[in-house]
Amino acid sequence: MPESPIRKLVPYSEKAYKAGKKVYHLNIGQPDIKTPQVALDAVKNNTLTTIEYSRSEGSEQYRTKIANYYHKNNIEVKHDDIIVTTGGSEALLFTFGSIMDTDDEIIIPEPFYANYNGFSTASGVNVVPVISKIEDNFALPPISEFEKLITPKTKAILICNPGNPTGYLYSKEEILQLAELVKKHDLFLIADEVYREFTYDGVQHHSIMSIDGLEDYAIMIDSVSKRYSMCGARIGCLVSKNKTVIKTALKFAQARLSPPTLAQIASEAALDTPQSYFDEVKSEYLGRRNTLIAELEKIDGVKIGVPKGAFYCIVELPIKNSDKFAQWLLEEFDIDKETVMVAPAAGFYSTPGVGLNQIRIAYVLNKESLIKAVTLLKEALKVYKD
Amino acid sequence: MPESPIRKLVPYSEKAYKAGKKVYHLNIGQPDIKTPQVALDAVKNNTLTTIEYSRSEGSEQYRTKIANYYHKNNIEVKHDDIIVTTGGSEALLFTFGSIMDTDDEIIIPEPFYANYNGFSTASGVNVVPVISKIEDNFALPPISEFEKLITPKTKAILICNPGNPTGYLYSKEEILQLAELVKKHDLFLIADEVYREFTYDGVQHHSIMSIDGLEDYAIMIDSVSKRYSMCGARIGCLVSKNKTVIKTALKFAQARLSPPTLAQIASEAALDTPQSYFDEVKSEYLGRRNTLIAELEKIDGVKIGVPKGAFYCIVELPIKNSDKFAQWLLEEFDIDKETVMVAPAAGFYSTPGVGLNQIRIAYVLNKESLIKAVTLLKEALKVYKD
Ligand SMILES: Cc1ncc(COP(=O)(O)O)c(C=O)c1O
Ligand SMILES: Cc1ncc(COP(=O)(O)O)c(C=O)c1O
Repeated sequence: MPESPIRKLVPYSEKAYKAGKKVYHLNIGQPDIKTPQVALDAVKNNTLTTIEYSRSEGSEQYRTKIANYYHKNNIEVKHDDIIVTTGGSEALLFTFGSIMDTDDEIIIPEPFYANYNGFSTASGVNVVPVISKIEDNFALPPISEFEKLITPKTKAILICNPGNPTGYLYSKEEILQLAELVKKHDLFLIADEVYREFTYDGVQHHSIMSIDGLEDYAIMIDSVSKRYSMCGARIGCLVSKNKTVIKTALKFAQARLSPPTLAQIASEAALDTPQSYFDEVKSEYLGRRNTLIAELEKIDGVKIGVPKGAFYCIVELPIKNSDKFAQWLLEEFDIDKETVMVAPAAGFYSTPGVGLNQIRIAYVLNKESLIKAVTLLKEALKVYKD
Repeated sequence: MPESPIRKLVPYSEKAYKAGKKVYHLNIGQPDIKTPQVALDAVKNNTLTTIEYSRSEGSEQYRTKIANYYHKNNIEVKHDDIIVTTGGSEALLFTFGSIMDTDDEIIIPEPFYANYNGFSTASGVNVVPVISKIEDNFALPPISEFEKLITPKTKAILICNPGNPTGYLYSKEEILQLAELVKKHDLFLIADEVYREFTYDGVQHHSIMSIDGLEDYAIMIDSVSKRYSMCGARIGCLVSKNKTVIKTALKFAQARLSPPTLAQIASEAALDTPQSYFDEVKSEYLGRRNTLIAELEKIDGVKIGVPKGAFYCIVELPIKNSDKFAQWLLEEFDIDKETVMVAPAAGFYSTPGVGLNQIRIAYVLNKESLIKAVTLLKEALKVYKD
């Protein structure tokens, strides 16, 4: 199993704490946003006397409500196209296990969510990266680049939309191009759409589930973690109109018995979250993004992949090795006992040697803290020597 | 992925419901026992405003409390020998993934918990069964039988103690024999001890974690599901003093981010469940077991593997094929619109053709229902023709 690029730094952050430093965490995707009150209340008011297993695929009532939520998002699916999972993480694991055998290959535009590596290793399959570049703001690489990589072992293409770690939001044209490609080569198209709600600048999100003719090829990964800021609930889902995929994934679901019951209560209630909640949260993230970008632009020699969605961005720094830099920030740097923790970007690439001078920043802190954190970064870069 | 032997019958039970029949469920391990009030209250009184990820290995506080619970059970481990998982199911999956590669082999006495097959398939490893017999009440097969099966690909032996589906409780001597065997051949010994509390007739449970000199070889699987009748919480753990095992399993844990947060609140509180709860629950199960056995003994031609633990037993019936019988019970049989659902035992064996005339009964119903259910079984056998 590969190690997560973020976890590697944890011992150093613990050292920083022990040294009495305050650490601004730009490194993790744990939002500080409040969980919707309806969800919290549903848990507090639950009337269970025995916390029983639920159905392996999730309760029919909850799945029907999810289908209704999708309908409002221009995605037409039925409850039995949905398997409720223990987070989007498990949906990824079930998907990999269901559509690939040992040594099969999956093509993923890099940089990508680092745990895709872990799920690939756990399923015995190989990730084949296709590079997307900060210069292009991480747009979809040309389709010819994908085609070059397709072998008889290729079973799927996986995109994350909006992207973690890039914040990139694929255009309808890009999605349609991928749709043509997977149909031509008889591959699955998996889209991790857990950040669907988080789009900025009026740009619209396009789900692979809304494309006509892609029914047999499309598998969508989803999660309540970020949407309702309830990462610890551990509820996600796998959605596909391909009956064979659902049937196979259901066997994985049955082997592990059931997704968490209390969290399903919270997640079902969360579907009644008022629109005002999302409006507020989105405007908060938008404000944070704008603040972050404005502050970063004050630093000499940085290059920013401006995010159109999610709450991450990749930043290129005038340094040689961000692994060392991130460690140095925790171990050796502080201003008035304050420092900052960032995620070195190399861990989001699977091609060795790429992204060494990049970091990922998650803008999950309030604006004031973001300004403070970027100022620390700026001062650090003035004194840091590679 | 193999299909669970219990799930196969679900369409037939749905048909029975549609036909207006009442079905007594002797087929599933979902107890009707109430969850301890302390656990339910902790969830209702939680003060979270954001349901955040917990640490991937579970909170240190919770793991420390688990270690304390083990101490009371003569198992001396530290919090960092423990990884909190999403049910015992995930602990099994992490264990298989951590200690075996594709095509490796694991020896398991059969009949065994059917989902071991699913986790093996998901991990690409092969189950090698060693048969235990109803005639011996499912005692450990002779060690020579294990030794015959060991190949260079063998990585582990897995036992379930007390056993599902047998209710068998291994003696200290049996555990010691296995300990010698794994040390001799440098294998892991995995013990699924999720039913630890459920032992009857004054027979004591012996954990593999209490054996001196087995520290590097022993991996214990545990769960709150049955202990506190909170199956839907989805909290279990993997315990080992082998640092490499823990380090590898932690990578699997990190890839899926976190076990469920609300359920950890419930599980931590459940550790304060008063002894009176267990005394009551155990005496309830004991009463049920005795009732079940007494009722079953009234049926001509049945053979019973008398359980000393857990809440299952294997019963041999005077029929040829229990798959067909179980289906017939749901489809064709009723007395006053009532029938019974049992788990055909063949699915708990991995050797083809074994256990065809056996069923597994879970005594998770109250005594009155058990008597009713066994009476139905008895009447059914009078009219059933293979
Ligand atoms: C792109 C992406 N996919 C999936 C996940 C998994 O999240 P969860 O398992 O909490 O649903 C994450 C979490 O950060 C993510 O960023
Ligand atoms: C023997 C055994 N092990 C493990 C499990 C898994 O239970 P859970 O994942 O709910 O902890 C079960 C559930 O029935 C079981 O019977």
